[in-house]
Amino acid sequence: MKSPLIQSLIEAFRVLPGVGPKSAQRMAYHILERNKKGGTTLSSVLSEAIEKVGHCSQCRTLTEEATCGICVSERRLKTELCIVETPSDVSVIEQSGIFRGKYFVLMGHLSPIDGVGPEALGLDQLALRLASEPIEELILATNPTVEGEATAHYILQMAKQHGIKASRLAQGIPMGGELEYLDSGTLSQAFLARNTLES
Amino acid sequence: MKSPLIQSLIEAFRVLPGVGPKSAQRMAYHILERNKKGGTTLSSVLSEAIEKVGHCSQCRTLTEEATCGICVSERRLKTELCIVETPSDVSVIEQSGIFRGKYFVLMGHLSPIDGVGPEALGLDQLALRLASEPIEELILATNPTVEGEATAHYILQMAKQHGIKASRLAQGIPMGGELEYLDSGTLSQAFLARNTLES
Repeated sequence: MKSPLIQSLIEAFRVLPGVGPKSAQRMAYHILERNKKGGTTLSSVLSEAIEKVGHCSQCRTLTEEATCGICVSERRLKTELCIVETPSDVSVIEQSGIFRGKYFVLMGHLSPIDGVGPEALGLDQLALRLASEPIEELILATNPTVEGEATAHYILQMAKQHGIKASRLAQGIPMGGELEYLDSGTLSQAFLARNTLES
Repeated sequence: MKSPLIQSLIEAFRVLPGVGPKSAQRMAYHILERNKKGGTTLSSVLSEAIEKVGHCSQCRTLTEEATCGICVSERRLKTELCIVETPSDVSVIEQSGIFRGKYFVLMGHLSPIDGVGPEALGLDQLALRLASEPIEELILATNPTVEGEATAHYILQMAKQHGIKASRLAQGIPMGGELEYLDSGTLSQAFLARNTLES
């Protein structure tokens, strides 16, 4: 008995991550009852972004320009290159403000089962950059998952071939974390990598 | 350093209920990285729905037709009219399958502080229906909140003027609920409205 157009809108919202039938219905009614203006903006920005956003020619991140803001910036170190899996990872590292170099975004990780090989991750393009740019250190910031570790291992071999130093983000107890709620893998890692205190 | 268009898209997603900065970012990247097709559909259905969906001429619910499917249906009882606050309420009652009459959707509740009076809820239109249609019972299904109760009370007076019976949904312990986790208001209500068992 529900209007077919409203039903289609509810189904359309389900493409968003973390949105189930209840949330999708709530979103549809919220927009139609209370925020048509915001919904119109969402619709137009969404279609514009889908049309215009592509990949940065240098680092492969998502951007509507040919080359992204970080890659064209003169103020970023050319000697450090941080390898991440996704544009969201760039975003979270930028928010921390800890890193002043440039990025290379794999847009995924090695996963032979899903047919994702080195070419799909742009590793040939990375090899060209390693050969031509004054990169001194590769920071392998892929996720600490099986696939992320395998991807890091593969890129480590590439770094070795080009005589470039490679590093991996430290693993251990997160800040503000409580031992009680920590998984045993992280805890083991924190024990193995423990630091001697100066007295 | 984030692309301005991606930043606009993230902000545009914030109009959706329950979507904070983190979820909005996740939605934007998910669409751009993995589901451009679904995003395009969402954009077009959203703009179509915003343009076409309006209110049913009979019951005021959201629909893209002049009169909604329930109001035009010959199979619904004309003698029972259920008063609800929002189209979502119609949806949830329809899912239960318990009600075979028609609806009247207030699109809100009486709230003098926010300037929502009887006219904004279409109560003049409701009065016309009470006078002209063969309605025998009004089921007041507004929410059990202060505003919902006040609204129900107001409509009860209208029903009395037209000599129409009015009822309110029963309050008590929800099915599958546990006493331990129940608020004291609901528990008091369940005690006061307790049913004598046949032996």
